[in-house]
Amino acid sequence: MIGAYQKRCQQRVDSCLDTLFYPPRPQLERLYQAMRYSVMNGGKRVRPLLVYAACEALEGEVALADGAACAVELIHAYSLVHDDLPAMDDDDLRRGQPTTHKAFDEACAILAGDGLQSLAFEALSLDAHNPADPSLRLDMVASLARAAGPAGMVGGQAIDLGSVGLKLDRTALELMHRHKTGALIEVSVRLGALASGRADASTLSALQQYAQAVGLAFQVQDDILDVESDTATLGKHQGADIARDKPTYPALLGMDSAKAYALELRDLALDAIAPLGPSAEPLRQLACFIVERRS
Amino acid sequence: MIGAYQKRCQQRVDSCLDTLFYPPRPQLERLYQAMRYSVMNGGKRVRPLLVYAACEALEGEVALADGAACAVELIHAYSLVHDDLPAMDDDDLRRGQPTTHKAFDEACAILAGDGLQSLAFEALSLDAHNPADPSLRLDMVASLARAAGPAGMVGGQAIDLGSVGLKLDRTALELMHRHKTGALIEVSVRLGALASGRADASTLSALQQYAQAVGLAFQVQDDILDVESDTATLGKHQGADIARDKPTYPALLGMDSAKAYALELRDLALDAIAPLGPSAEPLRQLACFIVERRS
Repeated sequence: MIGAYQKRCQQRVDSCLDTLFYPPRPQLERLYQAMRYSVMNGGKRVRPLLVYAACEALEGEVALADGAACAVELIHAYSLVHDDLPAMDDDDLRRGQPTTHKAFDEACAILAGDGLQSLAFEALSLDAHNPADPSLRLDMVASLARAAGPAGMVGGQAIDLGSVGLKLDRTALELMHRHKTGALIEVSVRLGALASGRADASTLSALQQYAQAVGLAFQVQDDILDVESDTATLGKHQGADIARDKPTYPALLGMDSAKAYALELRDLALDAIAPLGPSAEPLRQLACFIVERRS
Repeated sequence: MIGAYQKRCQQRVDSCLDTLFYPPRPQLERLYQAMRYSVMNGGKRVRPLLVYAACEALEGEVALADGAACAVELIHAYSLVHDDLPAMDDDDLRRGQPTTHKAFDEACAILAGDGLQSLAFEALSLDAHNPADPSLRLDMVASLARAAGPAGMVGGQAIDLGSVGLKLDRTALELMHRHKTGALIEVSVRLGALASGRADASTLSALQQYAQAVGLAFQVQDDILDVESDTATLGKHQGADIARDKPTYPALLGMDSAKAYALELRDLALDAIAPLGPSAEPLRQLACFIVERRS
């Protein structure tokens, strides 16, 4: 069932994203190709799914969430392009394909990432189909900017780079993940809720608790997969984090405890949204999917 | 007189910008230092000046333009940081100081640039002192995103990188500059006008003509200075563009014609805003300053 929902959302966001990569003039073709290559690559679209599921949980029209769904995926995609650069993680494989700087070149990858970030804010602010109150939409822009920026995702990348080879304790590891992946997952849920036009403060707060737990669960599961999955399933080099001596949950807690922690976080997420009705079913199934996925 | 106005605006935007670079937690200190280093470096603040001058031309309260003034400078600063990277222009000197990747490291410079772009959208969308109509402010966000992105500034960088060593004609050179520097200069004027809350369609159109001429004049003068000024005055390596075999106006038109063209563009800019009253005096003086500056 989550498979069908997931597929529907993936198709929906992919068809919205697809419209963004037509170069307005021939001189820009290569740049737009590099952006398209970095985004239209069969990604799981976990963040757009969270946007849609949060919007639907509050019984918002799904089309209201399209702009936000595109925006979070564009931010995610840009962060991967820059993260893979030689000066950063120096990865040559992403989702089973050459990374953007390998398929194009380094300068093109830097610019494609930069352009994708701008496009995210354009998609969110222009979003002509969304009749929501403009002050709400301004709040959405500010929320995304904060989550993507130095106090959020970019900050997390900086903490991550500064942590290689260090023995991080659990608190320090969690701080890194809260920034690096947690902030964008959290804002995905928030944007979906705001886009519905039906979010009150207590629902936003419940959804935030859900998102924080899900965000951390996502990371714990990522670390588990880095150990247990093979390169073909993962679409990136298995064991890459360990090889780089990056701190991981299995390394810190042991594999069994890491798995138990992922399930504990899933339950925390489910508890947080227990008051929401059957419309929150996709959010619930996403929380389960995130700790059960194999890639 | 433009000197005093310029100084007042510079101090104003610098004191607004200064508040943005306090790390919310100690783990983020280096990233925030790198962002501060990239922005608080004695830049001329031409784009914020255009924001303020456009706002004042329409008799808007200057404080209304603070968020937009910060935003355009943050976008400009991020573009310089990424432009200087080894994979791009590979510059080690900027405004007389080591470039960000030299003073910190490459990964830190990539992230600082990424973070500055997010901060720009945060500054523009949060801007709590600006009581302007939220739909107007949403328009400002969309305008900035478009101008900064692949159809604007980032596209210009891509065209520029693709042009090294090519013999561009004047049309191709102008297309590149319209994107690379023109788009951000144009949106600076637009944001200032919108921030005033007093812009009608015909004034916006006149200001757009002004901005297009000024943007191109700025670039022509930059090319002239690359030939005529020395490294100490310029704060970057004199002759750098020529050394890289980048197309320039003096190379294309000859020095005398390039100078005449800069003055012609200044006059076009002045004509466009002739209908505006004495409140547009700073805009007029900026047009003159741009073609008279020596660095």
